[in-house]
Amino acid sequence: VVRLMLQEGRTRPPLRIVGIADSSGGISTEGDFELPLEELLAWKTSGCSIRSFKMGGKGASALNYHASTISMVAGAGKPGNILLDGTPVDLKTGGVGLECCRFAASHGIHLVMANKAPLVLAYGELMAAAAREPRCRIEFSASVCGGLPVVNVGRRDLGCARLQSVRGIFNSTSNYILSRMARGEDPAVALRAAQEVGIAEADPSLDLEGYDTANKLVIICNSVLGFPATLSDVALTGIGGVTAVDMQKAALEGEVYRLLATATLVTAHAGTPRYTLSVQPERVKADSFFGTCTDSDMCVVFRSDEFETISMKTDEKGVFPTAAAMLRDCFTIIREEGCSHC
Amino acid sequence: VVRLMLQEGRTRPPLRIVGIADSSGGISTEGDFELPLEELLAWKTSGCSIRSFKMGGKGASALNYHASTISMVAGAGKPGNILLDGTPVDLKTGGVGLECCRFAASHGIHLVMANKAPLVLAYGELMAAAAREPRCRIEFSASVCGGLPVVNVGRRDLGCARLQSVRGIFNSTSNYILSRMARGEDPAVALRAAQEVGIAEADPSLDLEGYDTANKLVIICNSVLGFPATLSDVALTGIGGVTAVDMQKAALEGEVYRLLATATLVTAHAGTPRYTLSVQPERVKADSFFGTCTDSDMCVVFRSDEFETISMKTDEKGVFPTAAAMLRDCFTIIREEGCSHC
Repeated sequence: VVRLMLQEGRTRPPLRIVGIADSSGGISTEGDFELPLEELLAWKTSGCSIRSFKMGGKGASALNYHASTISMVAGAGKPGNILLDGTPVDLKTGGVGLECCRFAASHGIHLVMANKAPLVLAYGELMAAAAREPRCRIEFSASVCGGLPVVNVGRRDLGCARLQSVRGIFNSTSNYILSRMARGEDPAVALRAAQEVGIAEADPSLDLEGYDTANKLVIICNSVLGFPATLSDVALTGIGGVTAVDMQKAALEGEVYRLLATATLVTAHAGTPRYTLSVQPERVKADSFFGTCTDSDMCVVFRSDEFETISMKTDEKGVFPTAAAMLRDCFTIIREEGCSHC
Repeated sequence: VVRLMLQEGRTRPPLRIVGIADSSGGISTEGDFELPLEELLAWKTSGCSIRSFKMGGKGASALNYHASTISMVAGAGKPGNILLDGTPVDLKTGGVGLECCRFAASHGIHLVMANKAPLVLAYGELMAAAAREPRCRIEFSASVCGGLPVVNVGRRDLGCARLQSVRGIFNSTSNYILSRMARGEDPAVALRAAQEVGIAEADPSLDLEGYDTANKLVIICNSVLGFPATLSDVALTGIGGVTAVDMQKAALEGEVYRLLATATLVTAHAGTPRYTLSVQPERVKADSFFGTCTDSDMCVVFRSDEFETISMKTDEKGVFPTAAAMLRDCFTIIREEGCSHC
């Protein structure tokens, strides 16, 4: 995010960054002035930790991890500020991300999230807490499919439609591995390649066992479909069982494997939609929309009576689209709600 | 729009419709109560004109066309109301649509437009007029590619990106004809089929000569790219010159013809992007994203450094997606600005 904000010629959101943290801990300014972003970025890029960064003349507090970010929000963070959560996904406890999000949502601090765990574990709780604050906005377009605005289009542009189904390829690592396996590559080699490209999650089981895909489906259910699903509602099968032989058989019939997430409308009585949810490897025609979604591509298909079929696809190889999605959410909040650090 | 609003089980925007017009003229209620929509729809569906509709006990004014809609806006229409413009495209004068939009934008009446002409002819003027009103919002997601939220995604979700190019198939009729010609059909027969399906513009030259596509490109330029282009900036070639022989030659190399709109960034000095614009039939690989966009499909591809490549596609056969897009824009205005008839 910081690198993108500093790139020359880019439209920069009118934000001052007053606190920042990595797994070593964080720092925040004692006043309202901005952290020296160029120096911080150079420091971090050279392999040093945020907590060991020393500011020149101006005051900065060094903070411990866990408590750190919480304190940072409580200290430098004030109502109307924005907290950006990009901490790693922790599906067991929600981790420091959930702690911070809980604090922010209950103190009128806007939230922009790339981290999926707090949304998967506590969507209703966070939204209810934010709704009690006079002005607290939670945006999370970066949490589903990087830069592809799946959640935004679903919530805003298709908000007046009754969606019959949502189906998609939401995890680029597993899609990358399936695509390479179809070309005869060993799955382990393909995973290493995905890690080298930087698209794989820190914990590879999230990608391979389908949890990352299921997380995104749960977020879509809660935010777009109005169906308060949890992970346990998803019939989940990862890509581990798909063998080279399976792939060869599929290829003979012009088909390929894709790890598909599906939500299908079951009942639609007034106000209470219910969907069945699955994440599983499925065979699709190689020349279909899903079949042509290869390598690190991700995609979604929304079906409704009102809008018929709307399909979206992103072909992104780097880490910037997800960062850009967090900036987009900051812009949305600033435009629609205002921010005390603009 | 009315049919969609009345469909059972649909989420209906909290709006009362107090005036309505067709080419015969219009009617509006004298109070603030809603027109009897079910009866009006049955009346209109049976082939009768709006102007000849007689309301039961409640008062309604019959209005002349041209003056009609203007008067309706001036009379029943009040600041905070929403005017929906779905009049036919008139690129020469802007027609009654432009008159109404001018009136609305300068009187604090929100605008939701499916009609492209006022945007193509007077984008800057309308936006400037609306900006002078304390609360006047202009939304027009229905004007580009029916239900596909091209303008919304471009303006809101990619608003923080510097777009390198926007490319797409924006006209379903010409795409339908090219797709059928590729299967050996006569262009005139294909056009009649498109008219029977209801996707063709009232004036077929808008579709075939590329004006409809160029209109949409101009709207994207003004609203998404921040480049105040007009139709004369578009190098325009329709599909009339593409012959059956051209198509057969292309097919031998695995290619098909598509009528593609393209905006390409030329200079990007701070604040002043400039794009070259073209609409022309181009040969693309049959299995590419554009090539697989067949029949009545429409699509767009946004390229930027920040978000890499984002592609969107709609497969819509009926008239409801465009109507649903107008309702979506009403919801957006109600949510973000409020409306005096909610």
